[in-house]
Order: sequence, then C-alpha cells, then structure tokens
Amino acid sequence: MSSSDPKKNMLRPRVVIVGAGFGGMQAARALRHAPVDVTVLDRTNHYLFQPLLYQAAAGVLSPADITQPTRFLLRKQRNATVLLSEIMSIDLERKQLAASDGSAYGYDYLIVATGARHSYFGHPEWEAFAPGLKTLEDAREIRHRFLLAFEHAEKSEDPAERAALLTFVIVGAGPTGVELAGILPTIARRGLRRDFRRIDTATARVILLEGGARVLPTFPERLSTRAHRDLEELGVEVQTNTLVTRVGSEGVDVGDHNIPSRTVFWAAGNAASPLMAQMGTPVDRAGRAVVRPDLSISNHPEVFVIGDAATVPLTDISGDGGGENRPAVPGLAAAAMQMGAHAAQMISRSLNGQPRSPFRYRDRGSLAVIGRNRAIADFGRVSLTGFVAFLLWLFIHLLFLASFRNRVSVLLEWTYAYVTYRPGARLIAEDRRPRHPNLDGD
Amino acid sequence: MSSSDPKKNMLRPRVVIVGAGFGGMQAARALRHAPVDVTVLDRTNHYLFQPLLYQAAAGVLSPADITQPTRFLLRKQRNATVLLSEIMSIDLERKQLAASDGSAYGYDYLIVATGARHSYFGHPEWEAFAPGLKTLEDAREIRHRFLLAFEHAEKSEDPAERAALLTFVIVGAGPTGVELAGILPTIARRGLRRDFRRIDTATARVILLEGGARVLPTFPERLSTRAHRDLEELGVEVQTNTLVTRVGSEGVDVGDHNIPSRTVFWAAGNAASPLMAQMGTPVDRAGRAVVRPDLSISNHPEVFVIGDAATVPLTDISGDGGGENRPAVPGLAAAAMQMGAHAAQMISRSLNGQPRSPFRYRDRGSLAVIGRNRAIADFGRVSLTGFVAFLLWLFIHLLFLASFRNRVSVLLEWTYAYVTYRPGARLIAEDRRPRHPNLDGD
Repeated sequence: MSSSDPKKNMLRPRVVIVGAGFGGMQAARALRHAPVDVTVLDRTNHYLFQPLLYQAAAGVLSPADITQPTRFLLRKQRNATVLLSEIMSIDLERKQLAASDGSAYGYDYLIVATGARHSYFGHPEWEAFAPGLKTLEDAREIRHRFLLAFEHAEKSEDPAERAALLTFVIVGAGPTGVELAGILPTIARRGLRRDFRRIDTATARVILLEGGARVLPTFPERLSTRAHRDLEELGVEVQTNTLVTRVGSEGVDVGDHNIPSRTVFWAAGNAASPLMAQMGTPVDRAGRAVVRPDLSISNHPEVFVIGDAATVPLTDISGDGGGENRPAVPGLAAAAMQMGAHAAQMISRSLNGQPRSPFRYRDRGSLAVIGRNRAIADFGRVSLTGFVAFLLWLFIHLLFLASFRNRVSVLLEWTYAYVTYRPGARLIAEDRRPRHPNLDGD
Repeated sequence: MSSSDPKKNMLRPRVVIVGAGFGGMQAARALRHAPVDVTVLDRTNHYLFQPLLYQAAAGVLSPADITQPTRFLLRKQRNATVLLSEIMSIDLERKQLAASDGSAYGYDYLIVATGARHSYFGHPEWEAFAPGLKTLEDAREIRHRFLLAFEHAEKSEDPAERAALLTFVIVGAGPTGVELAGILPTIARRGLRRDFRRIDTATARVILLEGGARVLPTFPERLSTRAHRDLEELGVEVQTNTLVTRVGSEGVDVGDHNIPSRTVFWAAGNAASPLMAQMGTPVDRAGRAVVRPDLSISNHPEVFVIGDAATVPLTDISGDGGGENRPAVPGLAAAAMQMGAHAAQMISRSLNGQPRSPFRYRDRGSLAVIGRNRAIADFGRVSLTGFVAFLLWLFIHLLFLASFRNRVSVLLEWTYAYVTYRPGARLIAEDRRPRHPNLDGD
C-alpha cells in the first residue's frame, strides 16, 4: 500500500469536495498544506478544460487534448484522495454523502462544486433534439451530430430534407453559443468542401438565435455590436429578440415561424444540480444554493457551495433570503476558482480559530472568442476586438493549458486546423454494445 | 453542386465497395484511373489504422490519432463517392444492396470487404463480459474497463474484490492478445502507480490464456518461445494449452478452476460478417466466403470478396468446394491490401476484355510487437527479436502512418508514453444521453 498511515488520518479533519471542475480543483489545491484529509469525489475521472470544449465539439481538438485525469493532477498532493463517485444526496444533519454505487462518505467540512447543467425553460423534452455543451460527452454528441448531418445530406435525394440537414441552429448567444456558432461556418465552407461529391457544404446555414436584445449580453454594448458584426462576417445568421417556442424533430419554432433543421444545439439556460434543492438549503430560480458572504450555507458553516452551483447575494448578509438577488459573481471559470480558494481559506481559518471573511470577486476582465481571428476582450476601461483580442485569447489559453501536458499537441492541432480549415478529429462514434453489468456506474 | 456530370456517370460501370478497411480502400484507390464510378459504403465515417488499435485500447493514443475520415482520404479521387451506410443484405440476382436506412444501391461490380468480428465459440453471451478489439468503439470500451477497474479497486474495502478488480485476463495469444497483454503491465506498474492512494497498482495481474500450445502460433516456434519469455519478463502470466470453458461476472473458468477477474478481454476467434452467408455463396466454418482463385464468387464473376471476409482455397480451382480448405492467405493487413488491388485489377481486365488471373499472395514477412522495446519479426530465412525488431516495428508503423496527417502527433504521444510510462488518453466516458431520433443510424 502506498497510502499514508491510516491512524494518523483518523485525527485529521476530513474535507470532502464534490465536483472536480475549476472550483473544486482549486479548493483541493489550496488545501495542500492544510492539516486535513481531502477527498475529491467526481462522477467522471477527468478534469475538463471547459473553455476549449467548443473546439472538441467542432472536432478541432481531441477529447484527450482538453482533459487530464483528476487523480493525475493531484498525484503529488499526498493529503488528497480522488474517488470516482456520483453523489446522489447530502445529509446535512448526519454530515454524510450517499453515492449512486451505495457508498457513503462522512465529512467534517464539505465543499459542493457540482456546477450547472442546461435548463430547457421547463421543456426537458427538447433536450433530445438540442443537446447542450457542458461535458465531454456533450461535445462528442455535438461533433457526432454536426458531422452526421453532412453524411445524411450526401445520401439524401430530397432537396428540402437536404436543406434541413444543412441548417444548423444554435439557441442562445452567450459565450458558448457564440463560440460554437463562430467555428461551424468556417469548417463547413472551407474544411469539408472537397470531401463531398453530391452536396456543396458551403451552402450550409448556421443560425444563432438569442432571446435577448444582443449577443454576449454580459459584455458592454459596443463589444456586443462588434461581435454581432464579426459573426455575420463569418457567415452566421444572427437573430436577436427571438424566443424559441418549440424544438422538435422538424426543427425550431420561433413564434409562428418554423426553421426546418435536423441539428439544433442548446446554449441558453443554466440550472444547478438537483443536489442543492435536495440538501434543503435555500435556492434561487436556477436551483443555485443561496450562500452566505463567506460562501457557506445558512446554519451549516461547515458546508460551502461554490462556482455555478452557488449564488452570492449582493446585499442579503444573513444568506437566508429568497432567490431573487442578482448574482454579483459571474459564471466564469475565474470566479469559480476564486470561490474555491476562498472556501479552502475559510476552512483553514476555522481550524486555526480565526474569524471568517466575506468572499470578494476580483474581476480580471472577460474574453470571448468569436471564430477564426476574432475575439472580444473587456477589461473595464480597456477593451480589445478583432485579431488583437484573438491573439490575447490564444496566449491566455495556451498559458492556462501549460498546467496540462497536452499543450504541444493542442498547438499542433490548432496549426493544422488553422492552415487547412479542417477539424482534425472528425470521428463519428459507432453504436455501443452492452456494458459489463458490474461496471455500469460511470 | 461539386459533383461531376451525372449524364456521363450513367454510362460508366458502377463499382460498389462495401467496407472501408485495408482491403476496401486499396481496391478503391486501385480503381482511380479506371473508367468506372466507385461508391464506397461503410458503417463508420472513418478509416482505421487497425495495427495501432491496441494502443488506443491502452489509452496511449487518442482515437483521432489512428483514424482519418474515409471521404477525406478519397477527396482527390474524383470517380469515388463515399457514403455512410450499413449494408444489411446483398441480392446477387438483382445486383442490389439494401442498407439499414432503407436505401438501395445497384452495382455492376461489387467488392465485399466487410472484415471479421470476434467469435465466442458458440457463446455469444460471453461478449458482454469480454469485449473484443476490432473497432474504435471496442478500443474505447477496453480503455474504459481497464481504467475503471483501478477506480473501483481504489474504492473497494473488500480484499478479494480488490484482487479480482486488479486481475486482467486476456483470452487468445494471437497478435492482438499479445499486443494488449504486453502493454498493460507496464502501464499498471509504472504509469499509474503514483496516482492512487489506497491500492498499489503494481500488484495488478495480467493473465494471457491461450488454447493452443504456444503464443503467436503463426510464427516459427523459436520466435513464439522468445515472445513467451518476453511477455513473462514484462510481467504477463502466460498460460498455454488452457481452454476457457466459461466467462461471466465472476471471471473466467478454465476447466474446474476459476480465475476471479472483473475485466476480461477477448482476442480468440474470428467470424466473418453474416452478409457472406446471407448472399448464398459457400462459406467456411468461420463464415468466410469461399472465393475462386481470382477472388470472385462462384457463378458471379462480378462479385469479389476480399480480406478477412474471404477464404482462398489452396487447391480447389472451381471455388465451389466446402469450407474445409486451409486458407493460403493469412489474415493480415498486407494480404487484405493485395486482395483489394487484385479485385480492382480483375475489374479493369474484364472491362478491357482481358482474361482474369489467380490471386497470388506475396509474403513480405510478419511482425508482432510484444511490449516496451520488444517485438518479433519473421522474414522466412531471416528473423529478428527484441529491441532491433521493436525498432523495425516502429519504423514500419511510422512509414505506414505517413499516409495520415497524425504522424507528428502520434510520435509526440509515443515519446510522452515512452518516457513517462503513462498513457496520455486516460478518459473514461460518461453515460450517453438519448439520441436524436432521426439520427440513429450510425
């Protein structure tokens, strides 16, 4: 056994972290010198570099390029154990977690960092026709559908069916929707064109639907306008103030009008994991736990909720209020990481008998990539657009990836895709055969 | 439309190739200057470099590293069209193929190159417990189970269960079984060791079971002996003359003895696609079509069967005989490619009114890699073993990959894995969500 002495472990407080995303991993790392035993539980075995997920969805990068096994990233942190586990319920009174495989985990401190899934505005039946983009399997599903549409169009003899197969609709013009919409036309018009005989892939339409008045609504209006223009130059049909009323096998309804499409992607609403509501702590309308200023939940100073699973009220100090407060902390990777570090610091303070402090989000600016050679960046008084912003995006993402071993391989894939306009990982998966009955839990 | 003039196409003979493996692709390429229209039908969108499939199964390479879209590889061949299609039946009299999506394809010449699947010796129920390794999805499934076993062992509190989780059984010591068995111990003992806290991955057992008297039975006995020793030095427990009598959730039975294991991989028997029997042409016991010396089937000179789907009788010139003839042509990539080129040549000859000729297999030697730094190579009078054979294997496989764009990325992955002993693509997939009902055909 390579594990440390179990007797010594019994005396140390157990910190359990649920979710190994940006927030959870930052919390785990921040506890590396703390006299605690850290257990990281996640339902997947990998840490995902989510900002590049849209590139995996477009087939530019391989799944392995943007992931690393969670346990590999924490291999040198001797006080951390990583377990593959899907937590189904949290018992705040007994301080215990129950997993889908029947295991139970006790804790002294708990950090919940389970992120968010997509929300379909009360229409869960739309999901089958319009997958979202949060996990690697989502990215695989989107890549799969994007490529299959061209395959089916090549086989189709019916012009209307062919047109519907070559129409791609993306619902929601936040960063994910814009990234996805921006990358698809270039691939269709340039990368795939010579490979097909019966269809002209350059006739493919990419339609971006946004319910609000402008794309990338969290950015200043001037940048939104620029992003809108950039998208149109890339070949995206952008429709703002357009509410989707139905999604089905025939396409998307917007009011009385139907857009015939066989391939719809969803990038609209978010909903936190049902665990928040199950815990019995107050949640907002998106299901996010309403946390206290120190990021703990009311009546349970030993339980923290961070990242997209939490909402930090602007004014309500008690943390007991309803869910109508505007979140002061944006749903960004940087915010989740800051919250993770703060929760870890609060645990260390409690162990040292020190008082807690409120979480303060430090805005270091935000960045959205729009497509080949185009991005926007907002640093408050300074903002960047176009190719300069794109270079900044490239630089920052390569820096981020430096914690991964795959950066050379990512650079290679990017160079290839940039020069040829072709996605390098154009795999459509086959059907899966039945799984081993004992190993179904992943 | 980028397609060529349809009127001109009507006058040209239609050659349909079912299956885009080594044989089918070679046939398509060999017809590039022939006055025919070639249609390549495959149930996946990608060409797979099968000799490196075991590395994808071990997580050393990513799926994208060893594949390329079929239509991309044929993009410059203007007389070839690629369609994603799964053929369910062949009507030899009407010269028509029926696909799973309801499409039908007529042909003037047909080349069937559908390869083989695993055969479980009349026990199809074993497949759920012991996946084989023929397709990319197989490789994903094996990688998934291999990595999951360690994850479950890390969580298990029961020593017997833990031992069964850390026991990997591979059935069949042909090239695939040997490659897989040779790569797993190194990963378990070196690559994964530091990442786990509760288990010592170096205690993992890899057991290779072979029904016959020696490993790699198609090689000369001296090389088999050397491979056997190499495998043992790598940490594989090799058991020859060992027939598997049952595979289930509790492991593998060999005679009265049970080997407790939660992870079994199958590399034993082969069976050709049921299409061969469905066509109504004579087949051998493995379901392979018994072809005539020119690789066509009896009474249908316009239909060829090649690669693992065919058996070429040694003496029976009529091609009508039973299936008991020893195949003169081995089940190797090189043989399939030679058969593909021959079938294409026979079609060109028929179009020119020239007589057909019998297929002759040119043996250029065979090579099997055994693990880190070890391989065996047989060139008739000359043979190589150990590190020299390994370098030859490396050289030949990089040359082969030169037709792919991924060779730099493969080299990088190999360098990484070689230096660190770690597989670079350690992804365990999540469960899949329901598919789009219109796009189920893949």
